[in-house]
Amino acid sequence: MNNRILINDLNKHAGKQVTVKGWVDVRRDQGKMIFFDFRDRTGKVQGVVLPKSPAMASAKEVRNEYAVKVEGVVNRRPEKNVNPEVKNGDIELEINEIIVLAAADPLPFDMSDIGFNLELTTELDHRALALRHPRLQAIFKVQAVIIDSFREFMKSQDFFEFQAPAITPAIAEGGAEVFQVDYFGKKAYLSQSPQLYKQVVMTAFERVFSVNKIFRAEPSATTRHLTEVVSLDAEWGFIDSWRDIRDMSEETVRHILKTVGESCASELTLLQTALPVMIEKTPTLSLAEAQEKIFEKTGRDSRDEKDLNPEDERALCEIIREETGSDFVYVYGYPTKKKPFYVYPNPENPDVNEGLDLLCRGVEWLSGGRRINDYAQLMKHVSGWGIDPDKISMFLEAFRYGVPPEGGFAFGAERMTMQILGLKNIREASMFPRDMNRIDTSLSEQEESDV
Amino acid sequence: MNNRILINDLNKHAGKQVTVKGWVDVRRDQGKMIFFDFRDRTGKVQGVVLPKSPAMASAKEVRNEYAVKVEGVVNRRPEKNVNPEVKNGDIELEINEIIVLAAADPLPFDMSDIGFNLELTTELDHRALALRHPRLQAIFKVQAVIIDSFREFMKSQDFFEFQAPAITPAIAEGGAEVFQVDYFGKKAYLSQSPQLYKQVVMTAFERVFSVNKIFRAEPSATTRHLTEVVSLDAEWGFIDSWRDIRDMSEETVRHILKTVGESCASELTLLQTALPVMIEKTPTLSLAEAQEKIFEKTGRDSRDEKDLNPEDERALCEIIREETGSDFVYVYGYPTKKKPFYVYPNPENPDVNEGLDLLCRGVEWLSGGRRINDYAQLMKHVSGWGIDPDKISMFLEAFRYGVPPEGGFAFGAERMTMQILGLKNIREASMFPRDMNRIDTSLSEQEESDV
Repeated sequence: MNNRILINDLNKHAGKQVTVKGWVDVRRDQGKMIFFDFRDRTGKVQGVVLPKSPAMASAKEVRNEYAVKVEGVVNRRPEKNVNPEVKNGDIELEINEIIVLAAADPLPFDMSDIGFNLELTTELDHRALALRHPRLQAIFKVQAVIIDSFREFMKSQDFFEFQAPAITPAIAEGGAEVFQVDYFGKKAYLSQSPQLYKQVVMTAFERVFSVNKIFRAEPSATTRHLTEVVSLDAEWGFIDSWRDIRDMSEETVRHILKTVGESCASELTLLQTALPVMIEKTPTLSLAEAQEKIFEKTGRDSRDEKDLNPEDERALCEIIREETGSDFVYVYGYPTKKKPFYVYPNPENPDVNEGLDLLCRGVEWLSGGRRINDYAQLMKHVSGWGIDPDKISMFLEAFRYGVPPEGGFAFGAERMTMQILGLKNIREASMFPRDMNRIDTSLSEQEESDV
Repeated sequence: MNNRILINDLNKHAGKQVTVKGWVDVRRDQGKMIFFDFRDRTGKVQGVVLPKSPAMASAKEVRNEYAVKVEGVVNRRPEKNVNPEVKNGDIELEINEIIVLAAADPLPFDMSDIGFNLELTTELDHRALALRHPRLQAIFKVQAVIIDSFREFMKSQDFFEFQAPAITPAIAEGGAEVFQVDYFGKKAYLSQSPQLYKQVVMTAFERVFSVNKIFRAEPSATTRHLTEVVSLDAEWGFIDSWRDIRDMSEETVRHILKTVGESCASELTLLQTALPVMIEKTPTLSLAEAQEKIFEKTGRDSRDEKDLNPEDERALCEIIREETGSDFVYVYGYPTKKKPFYVYPNPENPDVNEGLDLLCRGVEWLSGGRRINDYAQLMKHVSGWGIDPDKISMFLEAFRYGVPPEGGFAFGAERMTMQILGLKNIREASMFPRDMNRIDTSLSEQEESDV
């Protein structure tokens, strides 16, 4: 039957005849001999077709990215030819037969240009092919580990995973940046956040999390905007204060960084990046304290502002890094009126709330906070924020029936991937990035093809 | 700080003073004494307020679904009062203090009617509250285990998880049952299946799976239709034949059933259901063989039909169950022209294909099969099926560059939840079911509220 040996297992078969299945990663024709790198999902191995090999005819024919079945003998390399830097650098496959499973057209660009000389637009225009490149495989391996380790940590803390909906009936606030769906002749909308749903499920399951798509119709084609992203969300009840949210989110990020560090060491090396430093207790400042500190250290006075601007965020992260060695800093206590209706106002000073952001290397990584749990207070905010209660009736009903003090946090998978890996464009962190100009292919081209 | 003891851990604290946080599940006022069941995410416990307890005043005030903090002493019950049938049936909380964290309005219905006397429509109209009921919690616990165990099995087989997109640029085939999105003044669509994307990612990662939302604009309000569901998908390359798909999907379902059986025993009991029987080698028949068998056993002749109708499916499952003891049966070899363009035709008889369905208890649980991997053959089918190649250009590009023999399978999380638990309506298996008449609340009510 299928006696295929995975490339990663070849060194267990030294001296033996084996069958390998994979792709031609590189082919180097040296005239008398032809060298190959073969690639399968587990790694790469070098192969050689010697002058008198029966495989010479097919070796002359195959090209990069052919899918092949290869028969050969696993040879240990002589000491002087061993490359200790790469996996399988101590073995070589002496090829007896190459069977073509599927041929490949000539490639539209040199794969080795990806991440260096190739324009991102070209890479995106050929996403299907580019995904075979180790750089892209490393990025999405890290992303999968980020999502998995979030899930793993949440489950270890007794959180229940639920599926948040994508189609929503109404937009509670505003609606400028929302996608509208034709729903059997009626209007529906794509979810901008599972916020209200996770709060609802929390009232029943107490500790909940979700990994789901959210959608933003932002008409901006910057390096930081996508229209469809994966949101990782947590929400739980019976908290003592907003500091529970701070602590749990800190331990979540710590677990993610630790897991990425442990299981993606080779990917981080390939992507030439190092993880940010999270110290034992991440510095935590109120907005006012942060503004004061920025004023003290830089002389720039933003103490009357309602939020940190990008320049403030970078300055604050640099100051904290210098003072404590931490790449991370929490900022809490934003103006109540500037934030959504459900954020809990500080009882001692209701002008500021108990929402928080986690910043790292100058940008926001995660946000969260305590929410209003008291029904009367919630209804007051709904009215104060000008929200139609009929549009969030299911959410409001949940809070009529005994909801304890609660809160939660959220972050985006693509954004955290971009930040952890120091990528310059968020499109690199989405396998099939969607923006106002592209869904797989450029939208202007799609229009042309419809004509 | 937070010295809360979880209800499931109370029996470790017999004789001790503890703090419990949770909801009033039931309150029974017996005049001199008041009994409670309290509920947190880990379970329930009985509590009692004795006549002279300082908690009597608050015990008179609280009602079902109040969120409370309770101080009390964990007492072992006298032998005669022990209830071995329920968790914590051997202890009782003697209550000293009840602090109300949040009050609850009177409930709109008796929670104990859920699953028995309560109309599903009423339950859905009050979904937020109904989610607190053990029956609903059991259903969604089982669903979470189905999804988790799928993911676990795929990872054990070296499959890579990717995020399939929800927004798609075009509909390859037909388009009657697709939701249209207003995408910055252009048209986009909600994905009906990650099929083409998983095939693309497979060409790069070799073994891939996804857990993502799919959308069907089916204008039918039956007990089996939802507009938004969770699709569990797998796809992999370097297969020998369609039988690899059969085998892997069988082991996947076997693993899911085993895991549900092991970790949801109490939920299955509560829902009064038993898992279907999967024998060592699930019977596997071609469509022609299945039709022949149905004819032999029932006399009903559907041998000229292009597919099994619902009556055939039920008959076949009954026959197989009788003959082999298996609740499951695979059917393969459907007419090529009746199935999507990417399904692989049998090389020896191209009129039938190498797609397959797994049936159980009279309905389809899962479908899959081998796909066309050769680019020239794929292009012939694209043209034969009348598909505009420009609309699937990314998919087609992937197949220009050496794609080995491959296949995969898919099933829906809500449908499998419904089937495993024997639920009568698929809405019960979706936390926030969407259909043509409802998104959270009834769509006709939403229109009224807009007036």
